[in-house]
Parts: sequence; structure tokens; C-alpha cells
Amino acid sequence: MNHVTGPLKKWLMAGLLAWPFCLSWPVMAANELTWRQVDPDNTVFMELTEGLVIIELNPAFAPKTVKQFKKLVADRFYDGLSFYRVIDGFVAQGGDGSDLGKLSNIPLIDAEFEIDWEPELPWTPVQSPDMFAPETGLSNGFAVARNPDKNTAWLTHCPGIVAMARNDDPDSSRTDFYIVIGQAPRYLDRNLNVFGRVVYGMDVVQRIYRGPALNNGIIEDETAATRISRLRMLEDIPDEEKYRTFVVDTGSEAFIELLDDRRDRKQKFFHNQPPRVLDVCQVPVQGRITR
Amino acid sequence: MNHVTGPLKKWLMAGLLAWPFCLSWPVMAANELTWRQVDPDNTVFMELTEGLVIIELNPAFAPKTVKQFKKLVADRFYDGLSFYRVIDGFVAQGGDGSDLGKLSNIPLIDAEFEIDWEPELPWTPVQSPDMFAPETGLSNGFAVARNPDKNTAWLTHCPGIVAMARNDDPDSSRTDFYIVIGQAPRYLDRNLNVFGRVVYGMDVVQRIYRGPALNNGIIEDETAATRISRLRMLEDIPDEEKYRTFVVDTGSEAFIELLDDRRDRKQKFFHNQPPRVLDVCQVPVQGRITR
Repeated sequence: MNHVTGPLKKWLMAGLLAWPFCLSWPVMAANELTWRQVDPDNTVFMELTEGLVIIELNPAFAPKTVKQFKKLVADRFYDGLSFYRVIDGFVAQGGDGSDLGKLSNIPLIDAEFEIDWEPELPWTPVQSPDMFAPETGLSNGFAVARNPDKNTAWLTHCPGIVAMARNDDPDSSRTDFYIVIGQAPRYLDRNLNVFGRVVYGMDVVQRIYRGPALNNGIIEDETAATRISRLRMLEDIPDEEKYRTFVVDTGSEAFIELLDDRRDRKQKFFHNQPPRVLDVCQVPVQGRITR
Repeated sequence: MNHVTGPLKKWLMAGLLAWPFCLSWPVMAANELTWRQVDPDNTVFMELTEGLVIIELNPAFAPKTVKQFKKLVADRFYDGLSFYRVIDGFVAQGGDGSDLGKLSNIPLIDAEFEIDWEPELPWTPVQSPDMFAPETGLSNGFAVARNPDKNTAWLTHCPGIVAMARNDDPDSSRTDFYIVIGQAPRYLDRNLNVFGRVVYGMDVVQRIYRGPALNNGIIEDETAATRISRLRMLEDIPDEEKYRTFVVDTGSEAFIELLDDRRDRKQKFFHNQPPRVLDVCQVPVQGRITR
């Protein structure tokens, strides 16, 4: 945990002092935010034509998927492949196209759609009930939905989440993955192996070349598609190209204050009080990098 | 109204026949979708460095805002201005910066935050209750929320909506506008003058250059910002550069079937049945253009 200094202080001040529309986002609680360094063992650097994207893997929710993904990354499997199916407002899907039926020797991955909730996982409540789940919250920066009656929990399909594609068989994930790039398609929850989220470079992800909606997002012209030049675990990045990645600690006091502030909307900007509800996918959980 | 032929038929087939993950989006009802041509008087062509964006204005919900915007467009006010405040996952704000306090002679616009619902407006119900409103639906392709107890209605903050920025004073909109580019910030509803939506080129909007979150999205380097090369009403576009713009008719039988299909999710892809709810901001309402 790092306490706030330098640039963050500037950020806090920006949130507090800047012009009024800013107060709606990203207003910061007048308290010290803390940051969590992303576990280097779960930090993935994905370099696209458009820039650097950093993904945090979540083995607590999808251990088998994370294991296979790490193996593929170690084998340089994704280098040179492209985002071949990209629908604006929905998902960017990349990989070797085995999800489209291309032959592959890579083993399939079992369904990891939900877990039994483990009390040792961090939990910051966001909304109960939520329209799509009995309750939502944040756990290590990930948006999570839970069903307390069944003691189940799952990573929910917010913008920036990373999941494995599959066909009708629940156990048919393999290599192709997608990133959500539009309004949260939460109807997909509990039906796919969600295993990570973009913690840095979502602006880069939004520049991924889109396919035509008329063709289900499939990009026919391979030269136009956005290519993955290099996909590596942090440990395999040369030292001089490494960054340390931090995300806001969603369990910290300051963050919980920020959530309360977002529920209350006491700023005089708000002439009509919004309902006291929060969309777990609309709560920003910032990431930043340092050398 | 145009009945479906040619390219759309292809689209329908793609939705029905393509690989399974596609079934989740944009699955099309096995019926003829109809399209509505966007009223040329409310069609705006915004040309950015990144490509063409087409906006439909909505004078039924924001007549004064639309009137002033049209006047500004006729005066070539926006040509050469840039998107100077862009926060990934939130909004892209463009204009002359008068919202930041720069001097301006342009008159202010009264608050147009909600209207009394007019029964002659089309209405296709989507969700009731919704987390942020008693009910939501679609009206001429626009996502609308309503409060039947008060007979009020408002354009809701979905991705792609266009609204005027303002400061704390409810009547302080002027020239600067923003486009929502991330998860719907619906807490802003009934607090801003929403007056249009992007009906074509949202992929272009997503390529707008982002500012640093640490600086509230403000882009200090003006040369980096995405510039509006030309912003025109359709009538002022030279004939050879004109397109006709169509959006899916959200009042058609086929579209209503599509909504039902999205609620039911009967495809065998879904091993865990999603809740029978719809997020009005997650229902795709496609646009297309023809010469």
C-alpha cells in the first residue's frame, strides 16, 4: 500500500477545485486514497499497434483459465495474432480464431462461471439489490456480483473485463479472449470464464479497429485488424521496459467515502437528486503506472 | 419506413447462422426489421480527424438547446474547435471552452432537463422498474426514462448521447457539448440538457484523443486534441458528400420481438439463465447510411 503523494495529491486537488462539471467525476474523497500494487505474477503487458494495455489476471475467480492463459503467454502464443472480431459498443475479440472453428491442439478449459464466495476475499459493497444480481461490490478492484442465498460470486461483465470466448459447450473455452468495450453486457454473467480486467490503457483498447456490424464484427481485411505485437507476463518484460502498476485500493476508507459521495451527490451541481444507487460498472477504479 | 432488403437480409442471416457467441449480440428477430430515415432537419454531420460522425438531434426533448445548436452550426461556430476535455470511460467534451469560463457572447440556454410526457411520442417499453428510473423505453431510437407518477420523461445518459455542458447554474449551457463514451453515467439524468445521440460513427467517437485522468481529462497539448474539421446540418453538405441516414425503427414489431428475445435468452449458449431484465443503454439501436 502506498499513501498518497505527488501526482495523486494533484489529482485530489483537481477533483476538489476544478470546474463544477468535474465534480461529477472523478471526484475524490478529501481523504488519502491508497493504492495497491498489482501482483507482478498476475500482471500482463499487451502491446498493440495502438499502444500498451495492462491486464490484471484474477486466479481467485478463474484459476484454470488463468493457468492456461499464462501458459499460452509463456509460449508466445498470442504474439502476432489480431483482434479479428470487434463490435463497437460490445466486445473486441482476439486470438487465433479457434473459437470460430479453426483447428487447434490447445486443450479446452472447463467452465469457471462462478465460485463459492470465500470470506477471505475483500469485499466493498456497492449496490443491493442490483438489477442483475442480488448484490454487487468490489473485490481487489474487480466488479463482483454475489448471490448470498447460494453463497455464489462471479466477476461481472463491466467495460474492461477480459474473458474467454466459447461456443455452446460450457467447457469449450480455449485461447480466444475478448475485452468488453461498451455498456456492460451483464446478461453474459455466469456464462463465460471472466479471468481479468484492463487496469491501464483502456483508451488504447478503445482504438482497436472495429469490424462491420453487418458482418458480426468479423474483420475480413486482416491488414486492417489491430495486431497484438507482444503479450507477456511482467516477469518476461525487459527491465528497461517495465512499469509497476497500481490500482486504487477499493477496500480503503477513502474509497468507501468516495462511494458514499457518489451515492449522495450533495454538490450543488445536482438540481435534481439522482436515485441513491450505484452501477458497479460505472464506479471508476483507476490504475496508474510508474517506472 | 423501408422494409428489409439486401444488406440487412445478410445481417439477419449473420445473426441467425453465425457462430454461437454471436447469438448473444446482435441477434435479430426472424422477422423483417424496419428502418426509419433520420429527419434531414435533425441530422448533423460532424467530421473529425478520425472520420465521420452523424448525430440525430431531438427537439421533442430539448427544443431550445436544439435551436441554439442549429444556429451555432449554421454560423460555422464549431469548425476548427476541438475535444478539449476527454475522460476515457466517461465523456468527450468539445467546443470553445466557454464552459471552462472563457469569455463568450453566445447566449445561455435554459435548463431542459425533463419534459411532460406527450402521448403522441412513440414508446416501446424496455424495463420497469429500472434501477435509475420507474421505467425505461425507446422513443424514435432514443433511450428514455419516465416517471409516470409525475408524467415526466427525459433522455437518459447512455453511451452516444450528446448533451450540453454547464456549470452549477442550471441555465448555464451555452456552446460546449459532450458525448458519453463509457458506461452510462445515469446519475447525470435530469441535470443536463441532453439533445441528441450519435446514430453513426460511434467507433470514430471512441478514437477521440483522451486527456489525462490526473488532469480531469483536460488536454494541455492542443495539437494532440481531436479537432472538429466541419460540423454541418445535412442540408449544408454538398450533394456528392451526402448520405441518407437510417436507424432501426424501435417501434416496429420486429424490434419488439428482438427485445423479447433479449429478455428470454433461450439460446442454448446460456447455461445460466440471465435475469429477465434489460438495461436500456445496452439495447443496440443500429444506424446505417446509404448514398
